[in-house]
Amino acid sequence: MTANGAPGSSHKRGHRRVSRDGNVTFKRRSTSEIMTAIQLGIEYTVSRENHTPMRDLLTHDFCVVESFDFPSDGGRGTPAHKLSSFAFKCYAPAAFRHFRRFYGINMAQFLHSICASSLLELPNAGASGSIFFRTADDCFIIKTVQSGEAKYLRRLLQQYYITLTQNPGTLLPKFYGLYCYKCGSKRIRFAVMNNLLPSSVPICEKFDLKGSTYKRRASPEEKAKACPTLKDLDFREIHPSGLLLEAEAYDQLVDTLARDCLVLRSFSIMDYSLLVAVCNLDSPDAVCGDAEVKLNHQLIPTPQPDAIAPHPPPTEQQRWHPASATAPPADPELESAIKRSPISGLPARNERGDRLLLYVGIVDILQDYRLAKRMEHTMWSLVTDAESVSVVHPDFYSTRYQSFLREFVFKRSVD
Amino acid sequence: MTANGAPGSSHKRGHRRVSRDGNVTFKRRSTSEIMTAIQLGIEYTVSRENHTPMRDLLTHDFCVVESFDFPSDGGRGTPAHKLSSFAFKCYAPAAFRHFRRFYGINMAQFLHSICASSLLELPNAGASGSIFFRTADDCFIIKTVQSGEAKYLRRLLQQYYITLTQNPGTLLPKFYGLYCYKCGSKRIRFAVMNNLLPSSVPICEKFDLKGSTYKRRASPEEKAKACPTLKDLDFREIHPSGLLLEAEAYDQLVDTLARDCLVLRSFSIMDYSLLVAVCNLDSPDAVCGDAEVKLNHQLIPTPQPDAIAPHPPPTEQQRWHPASATAPPADPELESAIKRSPISGLPARNERGDRLLLYVGIVDILQDYRLAKRMEHTMWSLVTDAESVSVVHPDFYSTRYQSFLREFVFKRSVD
Repeated sequence: MTANGAPGSSHKRGHRRVSRDGNVTFKRRSTSEIMTAIQLGIEYTVSRENHTPMRDLLTHDFCVVESFDFPSDGGRGTPAHKLSSFAFKCYAPAAFRHFRRFYGINMAQFLHSICASSLLELPNAGASGSIFFRTADDCFIIKTVQSGEAKYLRRLLQQYYITLTQNPGTLLPKFYGLYCYKCGSKRIRFAVMNNLLPSSVPICEKFDLKGSTYKRRASPEEKAKACPTLKDLDFREIHPSGLLLEAEAYDQLVDTLARDCLVLRSFSIMDYSLLVAVCNLDSPDAVCGDAEVKLNHQLIPTPQPDAIAPHPPPTEQQRWHPASATAPPADPELESAIKRSPISGLPARNERGDRLLLYVGIVDILQDYRLAKRMEHTMWSLVTDAESVSVVHPDFYSTRYQSFLREFVFKRSVD
Repeated sequence: MTANGAPGSSHKRGHRRVSRDGNVTFKRRSTSEIMTAIQLGIEYTVSRENHTPMRDLLTHDFCVVESFDFPSDGGRGTPAHKLSSFAFKCYAPAAFRHFRRFYGINMAQFLHSICASSLLELPNAGASGSIFFRTADDCFIIKTVQSGEAKYLRRLLQQYYITLTQNPGTLLPKFYGLYCYKCGSKRIRFAVMNNLLPSSVPICEKFDLKGSTYKRRASPEEKAKACPTLKDLDFREIHPSGLLLEAEAYDQLVDTLARDCLVLRSFSIMDYSLLVAVCNLDSPDAVCGDAEVKLNHQLIPTPQPDAIAPHPPPTEQQRWHPASATAPPADPELESAIKRSPISGLPARNERGDRLLLYVGIVDILQDYRLAKRMEHTMWSLVTDAESVSVVHPDFYSTRYQSFLREFVFKRSVD
């Protein structure tokens, strides 16, 4: 997927290009220009909601597209700015307004998160060459989506509404907005979503799990990174006994995954992953992200009276009973970082009995079962075991995904 | 709309035909045969749900149609019966199962209501020539719908789901099932809905209100009936001061009507009515229905210590403060009938200060704004005031309907 050789560039993936001097562009627009346009566009379109009283959602609302011109000199109600003139489209604004309300995000808070401070560009672009921005308060991620993905999301919106009302604890991405920034002949579509990875909490491992074995090991280049994204086979090696959850949390997680997979399968969606990020409360070494908290602790902290010693082999009871994972970590700085984070983790234990917090969500759901995928599957099935290829039929994909997570990744504490 | 002259029949309206000896047929099938087939079909299709665990609803579920054969000798799981062999279609079973659950109706209760006792055929066929059955326990109405109406209802289902989740107090018809009974070349489609008119409570007046004035007076023939359906102009004459509601109830009713009209307008639905049936607690003379309770009272009952004397002119405070409408009626037999009814009424007062219970719901929503309607409007607007014709643009229809109900039909008690 990586292409080199474009004049003046040293690295290109998808529409994302990094020049020799480190500047990042997307569709030849600098990411700083895109960021500013996004902030201008969202501020203008979302503020307009102030003038529209909240009313019940109609099926019709899922299809609405509103478009606004942002000439450099300022337009009808749009402010003057220093960028090239652009147009900004807002998809299904009333529907996304409902979704935000559903998740308890009010307009002022949303605008403040996105527009009051600079967005932070995440260095780790996805395989698709998308660019990702994170808001400074950690609440939202802004991700560029391809034209087909945006169409797919719009088709999904009614089901999405139905899912939220039935299964409010869904692990599907939380979509808060879908927009298109158009400048010249270039269109950049992007979605505003929940952020899964807290930047202030030290993350020691991060996994992208699909339930497949074929090619599901992070490459040596990936593993050399400060914050590698590991895969299914890496997980099995690192956590051969899986991650232990309390019985109730396990049951709820498995149930939620089943309900989410039902929705994904009904839309023939495949190739989604479960992102699992692990914070170890008993050995909080950040290997990931830009953790603001540089925790100044030893590998083995001084045991506290109420804390369980992290490294000596755990007793069988400790091993299979993670209740005390909800107890605060020994380190007050880490405790404060966890409390400050807008994202809450799921208590668990690893095979050593260490108390963990897991940050979990289903990602990459906007890929449909397209002809290209079928082709890819047909091709691979000639050379290898068809069932281990990650690109298979949605029903099979969903079943394999769930059983891998239910059996190998998460373990249920014995009551 | 009434056509005579079909051989052997004395009266025909739509597909409904009454022979000289009083037998009713619909599409040449006797209504008793239709009734039995409906009971067989619903019992079979709904009982199947026992084998399917409840799961989340998917958008896909709104489009499902299941079909079953009912040969006279019994089929695959279907019982033998004495009718002609027939087929039975069940539309969107999972969606309607959700709707029933939403309204707290469990499977056993639904089956018991519909299948345990004979259905009662309502004598008053609608203008469309539909036939109506009521369940013996008063809970449900089964109404034949035209092919276009069934299609329209299926198109509405997703919006219907959205409405229920947002506006659970909606006055739209509650749809609990949509089916098709096919025998030979005849297809009879029908919907199971909530019953608006309690049969055990004496109803003294019944209105079908559209907010229009043109031709909105019941005909002398209608008025001569035991239970006439009166219209807008009749209402203005009988209740020139409208029906007084408590402030909170009024506000809620007006809000619900506005939300329901928003939905109807978004589907270009028009020509719906508000059905308002009135039970007078202080003068409970049944003129309507088959009230089981033959109340053995005088026109002016003996005043009870706590009851308000019904007929002397009310004081201003009584007139504009309907709070005591919630007090039980003086007559214990009427009180018991009201308590027994599965349908609850809305307390109100009339201009004389009598305590009323209103049974209210929006009816006839399955008519879309078709070309025929446009034509009709264009034609009428040449000969009369366009705004008073009931067939006008959905926006205008909705606005006129709401303002008529808000201003002339219901009055808000002064706090």
